[in-house]
Amino acid sequence: MNFTLKVLGTASALPIIDRYPSAQVLDVRGRLFLIDCGEGVQVQMRRMGISFLKVEAIFISHIHGDHVFGIFGLLSTMAMLGRTGKLEIFAPRAFGPVLKFFMSYFGEGISYEIEHHPLLMKEPEQIFECKNLQVSAFPLNHKIDCFGFLFRETEPQLNVKKLEIAARGLGLAEIATAKRGEDIVREDGSVIPNEAVTYKPYEPRSYAYCSDTAPFPELASWVKGVDLLYHEATYPQEMVDKAALRFHSTAIQAAECAREAGVKKLIIGHYSSKYPDLSLFLNEARTVFPETELTQDRDVIDIPLKKL
Amino acid sequence: MNFTLKVLGTASALPIIDRYPSAQVLDVRGRLFLIDCGEGVQVQMRRMGISFLKVEAIFISHIHGDHVFGIFGLLSTMAMLGRTGKLEIFAPRAFGPVLKFFMSYFGEGISYEIEHHPLLMKEPEQIFECKNLQVSAFPLNHKIDCFGFLFRETEPQLNVKKLEIAARGLGLAEIATAKRGEDIVREDGSVIPNEAVTYKPYEPRSYAYCSDTAPFPELASWVKGVDLLYHEATYPQEMVDKAALRFHSTAIQAAECAREAGVKKLIIGHYSSKYPDLSLFLNEARTVFPETELTQDRDVIDIPLKKL
Repeated sequence: MNFTLKVLGTASALPIIDRYPSAQVLDVRGRLFLIDCGEGVQVQMRRMGISFLKVEAIFISHIHGDHVFGIFGLLSTMAMLGRTGKLEIFAPRAFGPVLKFFMSYFGEGISYEIEHHPLLMKEPEQIFECKNLQVSAFPLNHKIDCFGFLFRETEPQLNVKKLEIAARGLGLAEIATAKRGEDIVREDGSVIPNEAVTYKPYEPRSYAYCSDTAPFPELASWVKGVDLLYHEATYPQEMVDKAALRFHSTAIQAAECAREAGVKKLIIGHYSSKYPDLSLFLNEARTVFPETELTQDRDVIDIPLKKL
Repeated sequence: MNFTLKVLGTASALPIIDRYPSAQVLDVRGRLFLIDCGEGVQVQMRRMGISFLKVEAIFISHIHGDHVFGIFGLLSTMAMLGRTGKLEIFAPRAFGPVLKFFMSYFGEGISYEIEHHPLLMKEPEQIFECKNLQVSAFPLNHKIDCFGFLFRETEPQLNVKKLEIAARGLGLAEIATAKRGEDIVREDGSVIPNEAVTYKPYEPRSYAYCSDTAPFPELASWVKGVDLLYHEATYPQEMVDKAALRFHSTAIQAAECAREAGVKKLIIGHYSSKYPDLSLFLNEARTVFPETELTQDRDVIDIPLKKL
C-alpha cells in the first residue's frame, strides 16, 4: 500500500557531480510512474534498484533537454530488456517530433507500442486512471509549453463497522449497499443513514509535481491541500529577477505557493548549478513555509497511509 | 607533454551501476578530444574534472544510442557554459540527421558553430591535424557504418647533439639545416650526414580506438605497432557465436588483433551487462596477448614520453 516518491535528479539545466537533471519515479503500490526524464535516468534507476520494465507510464513536463534527454536511452533499454507492454507517454505536443526522430533513427529494435498523449489543456484535466490512481495535468508558466502533474489515489471503498453489523444484524445485501455509500432501507421501512454504519478506511494520498514554472495565481488552487508538493526552486531570493526572466521560481516563491495551497509538505529541487550548498534555499523557503525539505538525488520520500 | 586516455564509460548497450556507455577523452598535452559520447558523458566528465570547453573535437564511431545519446546534453551544456569556438564532429553520415534534429528542436541557444565531417572512407585516411597530433579514421566491421580512430603524435623536430655542435663548430644556419633533417654541406664542400649530428628527441606516441567491430583481416595492419590499442571485447569466448551474429568481438579476438598488430599494450571494454565480474575477459585475453588490461569507468591511462 506504499505511495513513495524516488528522486532521481535534482539539477537544473547544468548537471553537476551527484546532481542529475530532473527525473522522479512515483511508486504507487508497486506501479511505477516516471516523471520527467533527464539524461542519466537509467543509471540512477539502476542505482536505486528501480525496475525499468515496471514503468507503466511516463509524464514529461516540457521539452527542454534537461527534462527529456534521458528518454532515448531508456526507450532503447526497455526494448533490450524485452518489454512488450504498451508504454504511454504524456508530454506536450513538442514531444511528437522528438519521438518521431527517435523511432526513425533508433527505433528498429523497439518491440513495444509507444503512445504519445499530447498535453493541450489550459486548466487541470484528468489524463490517466488506473485501479488506485488518477493523474491530472495542468499548465505551468514557463518559456515553452510546460505542464505539472497531480497524482491522487482514488477514493477507497467504504468499510462497514463490525460492531454495527452485529448490533443491527445487517445482512449481506445491506452491507453491500452500505459499502456503495448508500443509506440502508430495511424491510420494516426504517432507514439507516450510511454514515451511521460506515467509515473511510484511509484518506487518499496525493502528490503534485511543478517544474519548471514562474509563479502564477492559479497554481496554488490547482494543487490545494496535497500531501506532498514538489515545486521547482531554481534560485535563491537574490536571483529573483533572473528567475522571472527565465520563467523560474525562487525557493521563497515555491514556499509561497505551498503556503497558499495549504499543502502538508513542500519539497524543492531543480537547483541552479551555481549553488553547491543548498542551505540558503532551505532556510529561505522555511521562513515562509516551515514544512519544507530539500530534495537530493536518490532521496526516497514515503507518504504513509493515513488510516482513519 | 602528456598523452593520456581518460575512460568515461565501458558498458555496451545496457548501462549498469558504475558502467556507463562508451565515451573516452584523449588528452594530448592539454588539448582534449572526445571519442564516442554515450549517455551520462557530462556527469562522468565532471567527476573526472575534465573541462567541457577544452574539448576541441568529437569523434563518433557509429550512430548506435550507446555511443551517441550523450551528445545532446553535452552540446547544450557547452552553449550554457559560453562556448564560442567552433566544434568539429567527425562521425558517420548517419550523424547528419541526428545533428539536424538537435539543432531544429534544441538548438536555439547554441552559440557556437558545429561542423559535422562525415566519415566515408573505405581504408585509413587522415581526418584531422593540429600542432602535435594527426588523427586518421578507418572502417570497422559492424552492423551499421562504424569507424575506428588512430591518434598519433606528429614526428618531432630533430635535435642537434650539443657535443657535435662544439666539436664540429656548427654555425646557426648549419644547425637549422640539420634540424630540418637535411645533410650539412660545409663551405669546403665536405658533407656531414644528418644522422651524424642529430637525434630524434622522442618517439611519437599513438592510440587506436576500435569499437564496435567483428574481427576482420585488415584491422591489425591498420593499427600496427601502436602504443595503446583499445579494442572492444563485448563477450567472453563462450559467446563467440553471439559475438559474430551481432558484429562484436570476444576478448580473445581483441587479443588476437593486438598480437597480430604487435601493439605495445591492449585495453578492452564495451562489456556485455551480463558479466559484472570481468576477470574472465582479462584471463582469456591474456592467454593470447599478455599485455592486456581491462578498462573500468574513470580509469586514467597515461602513455609516458619515450625520450630517445
